[in-house]
Amino acid sequence: MSKYIAVDVGGSKILGALYDEEGQLLQRYKVKTKAHRGREVVYQTLLGVIDTLFSEDVAAMGILIPGVISNSRRVEMCSNIPFEKMDLSELLEEKYRVPVLLGNDVNLAVFGEWKHGGYEEKNIVGVFVGTGVGGGFILNGKLYTGKGGAAEIGHMLYKENGNLCGCGQFGCLETVAAKSGMLTFMEKERSKGTESVLFEKLIPGEMFHTTDLYDAWKLGDPLAKKVMKRSMHALGVALGSLNTLLHPELFIFGGGVMESFYEEICEELHEILLTHTMPPLREDVRFIRSYLGDDAGITGAFYLAKEALDGQRP
Amino acid sequence: MSKYIAVDVGGSKILGALYDEEGQLLQRYKVKTKAHRGREVVYQTLLGVIDTLFSEDVAAMGILIPGVISNSRRVEMCSNIPFEKMDLSELLEEKYRVPVLLGNDVNLAVFGEWKHGGYEEKNIVGVFVGTGVGGGFILNGKLYTGKGGAAEIGHMLYKENGNLCGCGQFGCLETVAAKSGMLTFMEKERSKGTESVLFEKLIPGEMFHTTDLYDAWKLGDPLAKKVMKRSMHALGVALGSLNTLLHPELFIFGGGVMESFYEEICEELHEILLTHTMPPLREDVRFIRSYLGDDAGITGAFYLAKEALDGQRP
Repeated sequence: MSKYIAVDVGGSKILGALYDEEGQLLQRYKVKTKAHRGREVVYQTLLGVIDTLFSEDVAAMGILIPGVISNSRRVEMCSNIPFEKMDLSELLEEKYRVPVLLGNDVNLAVFGEWKHGGYEEKNIVGVFVGTGVGGGFILNGKLYTGKGGAAEIGHMLYKENGNLCGCGQFGCLETVAAKSGMLTFMEKERSKGTESVLFEKLIPGEMFHTTDLYDAWKLGDPLAKKVMKRSMHALGVALGSLNTLLHPELFIFGGGVMESFYEEICEELHEILLTHTMPPLREDVRFIRSYLGDDAGITGAFYLAKEALDGQRP
Repeated sequence: MSKYIAVDVGGSKILGALYDEEGQLLQRYKVKTKAHRGREVVYQTLLGVIDTLFSEDVAAMGILIPGVISNSRRVEMCSNIPFEKMDLSELLEEKYRVPVLLGNDVNLAVFGEWKHGGYEEKNIVGVFVGTGVGGGFILNGKLYTGKGGAAEIGHMLYKENGNLCGCGQFGCLETVAAKSGMLTFMEKERSKGTESVLFEKLIPGEMFHTTDLYDAWKLGDPLAKKVMKRSMHALGVALGSLNTLLHPELFIFGGGVMESFYEEICEELHEILLTHTMPPLREDVRFIRSYLGDDAGITGAFYLAKEALDGQRP
């Protein structure tokens, strides 16, 4: 029976997983990425993870990268891991002699939710809100990546000449909707003398914990309320344009912020989406929450590897 | 040899065309729509067009509707033709006993350009700028329609709380980028006392001719320059978000405004698109102009009919 390796190369950890043909998880192995130590160290760490899981039975591998991938083979851009402009598939295929497919982390998380959930829908928009806003599209019944970088929902324009984004543009959706944008806003409010329980937990130079925001929001803290209101408004507006453009059968929401707040903000978000959708496209807009959590990505990487192999068979 | 009928049901005219299997145009027939006379008259006019072209050899039909279509069979919404909530495929299939497929006009125009042009690209975004802004997507190697209304590019949000759009929303892209939005802007300028050669040709209550705008623009008329600058800026910004979302291999531009101005504004538009695209996705953005002109739609309808039949064969 063939086995498959799925690896999630993240900014802080590299998680490897071994699957059987049916998608049963057989083994997991996790180490620190040590991204600051440069490409060679991270690459050797990745090889260490693969070596731990590899055997003669492994038929293909799927690797998750938080960046822009071309042709499922080359890392074009990657801001947290020193793998830019790296032909990672080719390197790994030469060493392990099995097909190696790469994918963007959120693209594959949505793909994982779709395949594992056995959804009948052929057109799905996945939106993951955490430190940034990532996306994944299933269109015409297949994972959609365009030239490799599609579904960068966080970098749709939300507001011309808005806040500077980590990507270099101004006014991207994630400068308001994601935790990165929320933090900038909180710090600005603090410097203006606004009071909030949020500031008790804020450590300079570090990202806040979503649970701290959630707790403050539940307590009715005005700043926490304001931060979430801004974020959900921006997100709802962007979702309205996405609905008008892609008219999908289903939206899947994931990521830390959506996983914490989903039950509480779903109705409001739905309402904002509808009022920003072209009127004839407002009917039957359906939302669900991701259910694989942190395993969505490696699940997608497993299916990517498996499909690539299935595609090669006559 | 099988034949195919393609019909373009437009706000002012109904154009029918008869094709052979290879896509050769055999016969055309055009009549006025008379949309103001109501559904039954327009429907009978459509039947008249089909009857003129129909014979025993006709194997399938494709019908172009300027509206939202579900499942290629039902007109959900249609603002210029009284066919809303009409099961048009079913009605025509009962009468003619051949498969009848419906499609949105701009979706099918882009599909026609793609099929007829024999493009190898599998991911294409088509943008047609005329009275409104319409779109069509080829994604994962197929025409993409989502739940039926996809690619309504003109109704992406361009500016929150902007001008009222014909669709009922505020700030849609077409309120600035399309001729409808340009006209509103021109009339506002006229009421402010701005002078322009454009006003010599403007007839109250009527849409201006693109050629008049083009001539004024070529003469260096300041208002014509300003109108086009606003339009191209809005369009470029929206294209930047589309590139970031769909990362297509190719953009196809059509519609009256783009057909007139393409050579002159292409470079500027490209530049605005790039500066509003997430930086790692700025490479190799390719543009072309549609080349089928007014025949793009019926060409797409022919291919829709032909593919539907090919799909039925074992």
